Amino acid sequence: MKTENGNREIAMHRFVTETLSRKDALGEVASGLLFPWPLETKKLSLVEAIGSRLAEDVFAPEEHPPFNRSLRDGYALNSRDIIGASTGAPVFLKVKGSVPMGVQPDFSLLPGEAASISTGGFLPEGSDAVLMIEDTSLLGNMLEVRRSLQSGENVILKGEEIKIGDRLLSKGSLLDFRSINLLSAFGFSKVPVFRIKIAVISTGDELVPPEMKPLPPGKIRDTNSGMIASILQNNGFSWTCEGIVPDDPSQLKSRVEAALEGNDVIFLSGGSSVSARDFTSEAIASLEDPGLIVRGLNISPGKPTLVGGNRRKRKLAVGLPGHPLSCAVVMWTFVLPLMISMATGQIDTERNVFKKVVLELAKDLYGRTGVEEFFPAYLENDRIVPAIGKSGYIASMVQATGLVRVPVDQETIRKGTPTEVWLW
Amino acid sequence: MKTENGNREIAMHRFVTETLSRKDALGEVASGLLFPWPLETKKLSLVEAIGSRLAEDVFAPEEHPPFNRSLRDGYALNSRDIIGASTGAPVFLKVKGSVPMGVQPDFSLLPGEAASISTGGFLPEGSDAVLMIEDTSLLGNMLEVRRSLQSGENVILKGEEIKIGDRLLSKGSLLDFRSINLLSAFGFSKVPVFRIKIAVISTGDELVPPEMKPLPPGKIRDTNSGMIASILQNNGFSWTCEGIVPDDPSQLKSRVEAALEGNDVIFLSGGSSVSARDFTSEAIASLEDPGLIVRGLNISPGKPTLVGGNRRKRKLAVGLPGHPLSCAVVMWTFVLPLMISMATGQIDTERNVFKKVVLELAKDLYGRTGVEEFFPAYLENDRIVPAIGKSGYIASMVQATGLVRVPVDQETIRKGTPTEVWLW
Repeated sequence: MKTENGNREIAMHRFVTETLSRKDALGEVASGLLFPWPLETKKLSLVEAIGSRLAEDVFAPEEHPPFNRSLRDGYALNSRDIIGASTGAPVFLKVKGSVPMGVQPDFSLLPGEAASISTGGFLPEGSDAVLMIEDTSLLGNMLEVRRSLQSGENVILKGEEIKIGDRLLSKGSLLDFRSINLLSAFGFSKVPVFRIKIAVISTGDELVPPEMKPLPPGKIRDTNSGMIASILQNNGFSWTCEGIVPDDPSQLKSRVEAALEGNDVIFLSGGSSVSARDFTSEAIASLEDPGLIVRGLNISPGKPTLVGGNRRKRKLAVGLPGHPLSCAVVMWTFVLPLMISMATGQIDTERNVFKKVVLELAKDLYGRTGVEEFFPAYLENDRIVPAIGKSGYIASMVQATGLVRVPVDQETIRKGTPTEVWLW
Repeated sequence: MKTENGNREIAMHRFVTETLSRKDALGEVASGLLFPWPLETKKLSLVEAIGSRLAEDVFAPEEHPPFNRSLRDGYALNSRDIIGASTGAPVFLKVKGSVPMGVQPDFSLLPGEAASISTGGFLPEGSDAVLMIEDTSLLGNMLEVRRSLQSGENVILKGEEIKIGDRLLSKGSLLDFRSINLLSAFGFSKVPVFRIKIAVISTGDELVPPEMKPLPPGKIRDTNSGMIASILQNNGFSWTCEGIVPDDPSQLKSRVEAALEGNDVIFLSGGSSVSARDFTSEAIASLEDPGLIVRGLNISPGKPTLVGGNRRKRKLAVGLPGHPLSCAVVMWTFVLPLMISMATGQIDTERNVFKKVVLELAKDLYGRTGVEEFFPAYLENDRIVPAIGKSGYIASMVQATGLVRVPVDQETIRKGTPTEVWLW
């Protein structure tokens, strides 16, 4: 059921009363806050840009390869000269010379001629294939050819792979070894990357800074700030951690306002108490225009997720569950796609975040119908093993290589069933 | 066939004559250079350490959780008080008070008493389970309980997940959101990480710096330096790029010696000509004690890989193939495991680098027997599609999410066959 974002009442009571599917929530936030936003970008050299997200589509300024290249060590020749060549009936070609590496050869081949060439060498005019060195013998100046070749064999032609104007990379791509390789092949020395400003605040009376030792009775260390920072950093976003705010509505509201002055996005990693969730909801609602947009996701874990912001000032605020596993699940399955949507306007961006595979489940998984569920899981002998502690608190996450997803209309999945896995 | 490292002759001729399997090569280098090495480490704060590799095993200094915690919003109670409770025969408990977040409650529960508690709250003395708020009604000061609970239901006991002295993380682990979360939960504010010094040099007369425009005829931009740097950086290693050296044996040798003065490791991304490979081989051999150890890997692509070093000075040198796809395959399947072996002494470290799965092959793959082959591949509808261009030069790698591995004793694999995939 779709509702008007602006007309919703703020849920100030004890339970999330209306949850949205991840997809609907992404759509409502994107339309409610008018994504994509014109965000700050910065031009960085390629090696500085490693691990950032590209702020523009990139198109090929040249064709590739830039010239006809040999793919082997051997002899450049014309395939028509050696039609029918075999061990029993070899063809002899005259070796005209050797193609030096890194320059265009200053000679052409005439019929009956060949030239030695290395992998990567510039194919001389008059040749269309390269015979591998293993298939020849050199007798003085004459090359004995014992097999025929197709035109184009062991060579790659100028422009064969990529034409001028082909799209090389899309806006929002995470720059890794593959994209850096591609960009440098085309002579890009700098690329624009997003510089989204994200502040991370933890809330809750029970939290103390992670370095506090010994732990006071009843307190728990703030593990979520560092975890959120780490997930952001490994996915091409920068961040600042702004510490812990107690469960006090006016303090929280003023800290949120202050943080949003200098940032585009604020993450509130929620205190685990009901009142803390109410305070977060209130702080996000106070941003107005439209204020609170999502007051709960129909996923487990991760239901008490809140999203809102201010459309005109272009500010996004996300209230994350306090439980570390819930927080991690929401960060990966919802917040990272949301951030990419903010930057690019694309909605269906899970595939930019996860490697989705289907693997055999190694043991029964007890789910519920009516909610999309995610279970941390690890790979073992090519099957996927759900790592379910009773608490799901810490031990289950540290060994997980991703999440098993149980769609909203499924419940128990039996051992041996091919099952959807999202690897991070 | 195992051979004595020290007694090998240096292969100065045109072909790699003796290749080793990846595993044998890792073993020979580790024993030849006496891995693990006592490498430089540095203590960093947790957020600074994101993306680095841990230099020590880490053990739990405390138990976890630090106290009996509620996993739900609801009422702490003693499960013996509500045995047999049901909708038809509810049990009534007296609500003694409310557990504040973040402190140890200053009261205990007597038989017949309950206390309201939030997720994460400290279980009061006298309680052993938490009833979810949905399963109750409050009638004034009395709680109507309509179901029974097991002892321990919806709570996690002090020390239930992790005991003092349990190993939390192993030396060599890549610090990501999971490990940062775990370390901060246990109050670690700083951790030691490896600071291995790696220099990357590209060699080849045909190479020009990636920013050169227009590209002179016959030249090719150096894409491997940035790609190697990116692979290292995303896998927890730092690097410096030292530019391009032409195919000149004495220049190469002096640049290698200079680079090894200030670094532990040097990568020589090879020129693609035969003579360039010979010069690299010669430069590595000149390190002596033992000099050249591996003069070729029995993998495709990636055969012309050279490894050597100096045992006494603790210097490692790797000659990488010039072809970008070959270079990437060798970096992922061999060099990253080799670096982890250097730091930790472990040999079988592929699983620290790849996510290994078995997926259905989407189209026939033509391999060869006698060599371990890797094909770049991408995920599509939960199957794996080999991305094989004729050249494998650029386009095939940029879309790949990993490598299909064809073991040494296999050749063609038919469409539909479950196939080994190493996702990066």
